[in-house]
Amino acid sequence: MNLIAYVNNRFLPLEKATIHIEDRGFQFADGVYEVVACIGGYFLDLEPHMDRLERSCSAIGMTLPRSRDELEELVRETWKRNPYADAMVYVQITRGAAPRTHLASASLKPTLVITSRALPKPDDKKLAHGASGITLRDFRWKRCDIKSIALLASVMGKQEAHRQGADEAFWLDENDHVLEGCSTNIFAVIDSTLVTHPLDHQVLGGIIRRMLIHIAQDAGLKVAEHPWKLATTNLSECMLTSTTNAVLPICRMDGSMVANGTPGPVATQLRTLMLQAMDKLRHS
Amino acid sequence: MNLIAYVNNRFLPLEKATIHIEDRGFQFADGVYEVVACIGGYFLDLEPHMDRLERSCSAIGMTLPRSRDELEELVRETWKRNPYADAMVYVQITRGAAPRTHLASASLKPTLVITSRALPKPDDKKLAHGASGITLRDFRWKRCDIKSIALLASVMGKQEAHRQGADEAFWLDENDHVLEGCSTNIFAVIDSTLVTHPLDHQVLGGIIRRMLIHIAQDAGLKVAEHPWKLATTNLSECMLTSTTNAVLPICRMDGSMVANGTPGPVATQLRTLMLQAMDKLRHS
Repeated sequence: MNLIAYVNNRFLPLEKATIHIEDRGFQFADGVYEVVACIGGYFLDLEPHMDRLERSCSAIGMTLPRSRDELEELVRETWKRNPYADAMVYVQITRGAAPRTHLASASLKPTLVITSRALPKPDDKKLAHGASGITLRDFRWKRCDIKSIALLASVMGKQEAHRQGADEAFWLDENDHVLEGCSTNIFAVIDSTLVTHPLDHQVLGGIIRRMLIHIAQDAGLKVAEHPWKLATTNLSECMLTSTTNAVLPICRMDGSMVANGTPGPVATQLRTLMLQAMDKLRHS
Repeated sequence: MNLIAYVNNRFLPLEKATIHIEDRGFQFADGVYEVVACIGGYFLDLEPHMDRLERSCSAIGMTLPRSRDELEELVRETWKRNPYADAMVYVQITRGAAPRTHLASASLKPTLVITSRALPKPDDKKLAHGASGITLRDFRWKRCDIKSIALLASVMGKQEAHRQGADEAFWLDENDHVLEGCSTNIFAVIDSTLVTHPLDHQVLGGIIRRMLIHIAQDAGLKVAEHPWKLATTNLSECMLTSTTNAVLPICRMDGSMVANGTPGPVATQLRTLMLQAMDKLRHS
């Protein structure tokens, strides 16, 4: 399979796609990224992704290295040059390469990397039994609203989930409020209302999170964004969202059943609606 | 100047030293590092640096990619192949390269990068007026005891210090205790005792921090490791430590003078002793 990557002004075979060892993305995690789903050539919410990329850059004191139009064109072109109609297009921007020192020169030339890989199909086997999660006290930094590449805490969270035989680790704040997963957002159904943590410095404004809120509202569900705990009396369902999973019920948490331990009606309905919305793109 | 880098089993010209764009160090900050000072061919505390590297690896679920002896030999060899007698040898280990997914396969081949660059001379001009600092509420992750490459918060701190015309930003915990700087440790003199924050998850066990404690004790100073605040009544001096600065008095903090705003006798004495200790290496 000949995969093609875009790196700093040129397209080249993925296996030859390299960056300098003194790139600040490699030495300081000094960069940001996006993963955009493309379904049959149609990008899922490309504008909100580019908005967020611009906000992430701005939050760390950078500007986009290309105009929005140029960036979007490069995203499309990278997708085109790769063999996947259904793809995850990955865009990473770092502050550039320079001899190592914390304070970067303002004149550095940013590094821009784009790849396109196959979009995993949401796994229907997972749906039958749901996903399993663990909870961890949040030890990430306090700017999780920035989609930065400083992801080591999330990697460690995933490792711990895997070690415990679970699919995902979810972060709890000091009051046991459930924030989000290592690479997912999380929702609960409490008193028939779909609840998720509000957008603040502790959670990333997920594109699918936002899409699910709209889909749920369109379906007539009540949606509320406020802090919530797993130990809430009338909690009847939990579900995670991400680009690769769409919506997935969570049936076990920390080794115990969530509600009755089977995928609930709200998660099942929202998953169907989400997959339909994604599939509609293919035919648009 | 022909600089040479070591990357994954080979030495090559620094300008050609690259890693793959899907290296987890570049996409996830999934790695750790050390910066070892070498003075006239003698390494400053190489053993403690290697101990810490091993601990950092272990904390993120990795093992050293080479034996201790092999690693030390590669550090020496990289130093030898470069033109600096006084050098900072930089060692970085990441979990390796693989298609992007948070959970890494256990079978990845780690990436090992070593470079050697000139050790900046401690700047005596700085000594005349001391360094200036700002304070920032700590927004880093809660495992700052791991010397990881997930350094974006520290980069942002340095940026903010620079924006305010200061040399360094120091992190305050939620109770205003002074933790450490973005790339330095910090000490105060309170009631004639040299005080610094104790080693916990919020500070890195700096090699020069440890060395200063020993030097101060040898010089007959009282040393205490406990939380402390800038607004302490009998605080008479502040100083920072790092490999490149040795010991440097801090004379301004957040725009105000520290004590009387001039380098104090303890910092001046400890700087002299530290530079002597470093210089002794050259003649050892």
